[in-house]
Amino acid sequence: MHRYRTHTCAALRQGDVGNNVRLSGWVHRVRDHGGLLFIDLRDHYGLTQLVIDPDSKAFKLAETVRSEWVIRVDGEVKQRTPETVNGKQPTGQVEVFIRELEVLSEATELPLPVFAEPDYPEDIRLKYRFLDLRRETLHANIVKRTKVISSMRRRMGDIGFAEYSTPILTASSPEGARDFLVPSRIHPGKFFALPQAPQQYKQLLMVAGFDRYFQIAPCFRDEDPRADRLPGEFYQLDLEMSFVTQEEIWDTMQPVISGLFEEFADGKPVTTEWPRIPYDTAVRKYGSDKPDLRNPIEMQQVTEHFRGSGFGVFANQIASDAKVEVWAIPARTGGSRAFCDRMNAWAQGQGQPGLGYIFFKDGAGSGPVAKNIGEERTAAIRTQLGLADGDAVFFVLGRPDKMYKFAGEARVKIGLDLNLTELDQFKLCWIVDFPFYEWSEEEKRLDFAHNPFSMPQGGIEALNSQDPLTIKAFQYDAVCNGFEIASGSIRNQLPETMVKAFELTGKSRTEVEEQFGGLYRAFQYGAPPHGGAAFGIDRIVMLICGAQNLREITLFPMNQQAEDLLMGAPSPAEPKQLRELHVRVIADTK
Amino acid sequence: MHRYRTHTCAALRQGDVGNNVRLSGWVHRVRDHGGLLFIDLRDHYGLTQLVIDPDSKAFKLAETVRSEWVIRVDGEVKQRTPETVNGKQPTGQVEVFIRELEVLSEATELPLPVFAEPDYPEDIRLKYRFLDLRRETLHANIVKRTKVISSMRRRMGDIGFAEYSTPILTASSPEGARDFLVPSRIHPGKFFALPQAPQQYKQLLMVAGFDRYFQIAPCFRDEDPRADRLPGEFYQLDLEMSFVTQEEIWDTMQPVISGLFEEFADGKPVTTEWPRIPYDTAVRKYGSDKPDLRNPIEMQQVTEHFRGSGFGVFANQIASDAKVEVWAIPARTGGSRAFCDRMNAWAQGQGQPGLGYIFFKDGAGSGPVAKNIGEERTAAIRTQLGLADGDAVFFVLGRPDKMYKFAGEARVKIGLDLNLTELDQFKLCWIVDFPFYEWSEEEKRLDFAHNPFSMPQGGIEALNSQDPLTIKAFQYDAVCNGFEIASGSIRNQLPETMVKAFELTGKSRTEVEEQFGGLYRAFQYGAPPHGGAAFGIDRIVMLICGAQNLREITLFPMNQQAEDLLMGAPSPAEPKQLRELHVRVIADTK
Repeated sequence: MHRYRTHTCAALRQGDVGNNVRLSGWVHRVRDHGGLLFIDLRDHYGLTQLVIDPDSKAFKLAETVRSEWVIRVDGEVKQRTPETVNGKQPTGQVEVFIRELEVLSEATELPLPVFAEPDYPEDIRLKYRFLDLRRETLHANIVKRTKVISSMRRRMGDIGFAEYSTPILTASSPEGARDFLVPSRIHPGKFFALPQAPQQYKQLLMVAGFDRYFQIAPCFRDEDPRADRLPGEFYQLDLEMSFVTQEEIWDTMQPVISGLFEEFADGKPVTTEWPRIPYDTAVRKYGSDKPDLRNPIEMQQVTEHFRGSGFGVFANQIASDAKVEVWAIPARTGGSRAFCDRMNAWAQGQGQPGLGYIFFKDGAGSGPVAKNIGEERTAAIRTQLGLADGDAVFFVLGRPDKMYKFAGEARVKIGLDLNLTELDQFKLCWIVDFPFYEWSEEEKRLDFAHNPFSMPQGGIEALNSQDPLTIKAFQYDAVCNGFEIASGSIRNQLPETMVKAFELTGKSRTEVEEQFGGLYRAFQYGAPPHGGAAFGIDRIVMLICGAQNLREITLFPMNQQAEDLLMGAPSPAEPKQLRELHVRVIADTK
Repeated sequence: MHRYRTHTCAALRQGDVGNNVRLSGWVHRVRDHGGLLFIDLRDHYGLTQLVIDPDSKAFKLAETVRSEWVIRVDGEVKQRTPETVNGKQPTGQVEVFIRELEVLSEATELPLPVFAEPDYPEDIRLKYRFLDLRRETLHANIVKRTKVISSMRRRMGDIGFAEYSTPILTASSPEGARDFLVPSRIHPGKFFALPQAPQQYKQLLMVAGFDRYFQIAPCFRDEDPRADRLPGEFYQLDLEMSFVTQEEIWDTMQPVISGLFEEFADGKPVTTEWPRIPYDTAVRKYGSDKPDLRNPIEMQQVTEHFRGSGFGVFANQIASDAKVEVWAIPARTGGSRAFCDRMNAWAQGQGQPGLGYIFFKDGAGSGPVAKNIGEERTAAIRTQLGLADGDAVFFVLGRPDKMYKFAGEARVKIGLDLNLTELDQFKLCWIVDFPFYEWSEEEKRLDFAHNPFSMPQGGIEALNSQDPLTIKAFQYDAVCNGFEIASGSIRNQLPETMVKAFELTGKSRTEVEEQFGGLYRAFQYGAPPHGGAAFGIDRIVMLICGAQNLREITLFPMNQQAEDLLMGAPSPAEPKQLRELHVRVIADTK
């Protein structure tokens, strides 16, 4: 017989009745039922009910065991009586009568109960993460996470991608966020950086002639803690392809990601044909470049209906600023004064002057706006938006770039409050044709809107001749339920185009050569057209698990102060270590 | 038609003759055959021969292309003439007649030729790694590496292991090698460490109730460069199991690793039933704890044959030191004076006084040793070792712990020089029952021979009562062809046994609590018996690829000075970065 177990705690069924078995696991719960002792024994796989009666030689010992002790028992599998069968447990038909019991490891008083998962302060949960991870929900989330990632790997392999691991000790990269630095012992005064993403390496892989790369890639950004991002490290499904167009990348990844969601969605509907929505359209229709398409509301421009109308607040601004527009947010079933007033109050709470509205009943539009613009314009708006009695429409006015975010927030609130948004589904889309440049007010110069490595649409000709702020990039995001789950682009692999693109942001050829030396040099020696994307694994797992917090789907997360309470990191270093690394700690000068 | 290709460069066959196709790739080689231009076009998948004649509109452009330019061609697939068929290329039956040609990316003068892979200085190869990686052998090695790792993952998944990623920003661990440190920006004066191995985390995973863990784990050790270890990072197949004995771990991993070697061995024989050789036996039989079992030579102790014999050099030392032994290295087919003298000279070159020998011919033993000990003892040695005419035997004398390494080296040399070692196979074994402690001459105290986390055989009773240097550990290595490819153990999960084990090395309970806080604390709350191993992936891939250098199987390795010549790491940091991290570079004080 195996030293510890013949079966896991999820294995026994009616067919095992009468057999002698050996089980090992944690004492999940002990119940004393009139002399009989019941122990729920738990392992990674499940629970089995153990029973022992006072006649057993092991009873005395069994009376001493407490929650979370690790024990090994030998005993006979017996059928439970009909009234004690537990239909919810796979092992619920049987129980094991303990003949022999061995304590493998005791547990001292628990700082955090495992059974029943009561709420507990997060710092206790993180310090005793090994107990927290025994709890049902977190344990299941972590198991699901490993399955999601394993499925990603399988799906990528199935379509001809190979996984290449890129270096973790690498060079500081001037784009993007703050690097974590690692002092070099052998080269005094020099530092490695942990990669913010394997961007340059994956592009070098394409230049090196590898065709379809992917990696479940650890990435590192030394950013200030934010609610939606764990401090320190996170994981991306990173991929890159050679000789591709952006359409081919979309066609390649859609089935991978849709398949993944379907596999773990517990039957919830998942988009299979992802809409490809230009950035400008997304902003105008949804007020966001990461629209939640579970919400059916699409906004429309209705400026003309207000131009020269009796609604002076709008008409005057339209007349005085050619860039001002009025957007309409249709709200099916929202056609009551109560709802419209509630939305108006909400908007004021958001710092807005209010939220104009019309609601429709008895074949006509109601509310102050309808009164001011009159019946004809009201009817025209209703027709344009296809609204009916019982519906409402809200209006946002302003320059699009200033107002779209608020309009998007109102759209989200209306969708949720009116139950128009069907939550139990995964709605996926591509947002495409992002602007290549944006204007940095702070630095009074052009800056890359997203990724300096992207190819501008129109290539070097566009850079030479077009208004830079109108240039689009071969740059796209994947969005699920209002969250950005991926970002990608076709890369700019032509060195002269790369230099020109940087020059427009004020960087000289020399600076490009210095700061992106590896990549810039590589592009001199035959670089294939290539592109790719990076999917945020933590976010995808969160969506799949329905978790509200990244720490609920992460094995050993840091807390919001960027500390690992379990291992006690970060911690002071030994003076000898610092001497070897040629660094000294300095007091904060601020 | 696809923008860049209808087929890869490995796809076209006779069945495609007559079709119009589009290919993209690198110009591998251009040949001018009396007007006709032949271009070998290369991509990740293979090579296709392109042809163009001067009548083609694209000829002028085709004449300009050079090695490693990236081009796209359209053309018709044609059957090659019988005399130009290339049987070694999968596409060797056909060629593509170019109708249209587009240069996608030019290449400037190459610092490193791709075609024909001539030898090149390593610093050039590393600086232009993207070119080096296009070369056939390295490209194939990297592809094989990705396949080996993918196969590992599949095999581990197939037997119920799940892959869990453990943190990379973690706490400094006082065991083992030197840590890489990462200064914390948020906590001045504190540092994260990169993990030397996920040892503590994987054990915490077992305590957290996860049963079968594995990880293709990046590990980091800041060690001085060595020929057989890349600076910086390396990869392990790390695994851990709960409720296991060491035998179960061996039984679990043997088929995984043997299967892996078989899958990639190109028909070379692979051990399926791994011998389990106690450490003491390995040292005595093979003079090594990582014996190359392709070499059939097994040493034997022959001390008694020399005790009181006429071979004074040996007899005197045996008489004066009870710990001195004589080991015999049998050398089948080595029975010539020439070979024996060559071995003797080799031994002197190794700093030894010489290497005694007897060689057998005409039914008798020859050489000075045989003369000195006489016929009877010579015959007895021959009988013990089962030697025959034409064979030889060599003798090493000394205290086993001082001489075993040299004896092992002599065994290796004899096996190779006499062609007794059959190289084209993979011989695998477990070395088991390692000593738990060793005596540190330097620190004049006991130290852990391997892993402080291992369980001593006999548990706490052995620690309390046995001579510590005789205690064995549940500690084992896997060995292939003379290389250690894995190390593992059953862990010491009982806190009191852990404290006792450390106490014998001079560490107090408080020090254990401080230095191994996460694990020590976890063991208080119900820790299952558990154990595991870590296989060195780089080493395994090297063996499979038959490579002689880790850089030949690594994508972007550092050089021996721990520099990434491609990306220019490590590099100086910006003063602002260092200020944010609360560190200052100090001049070397040595």
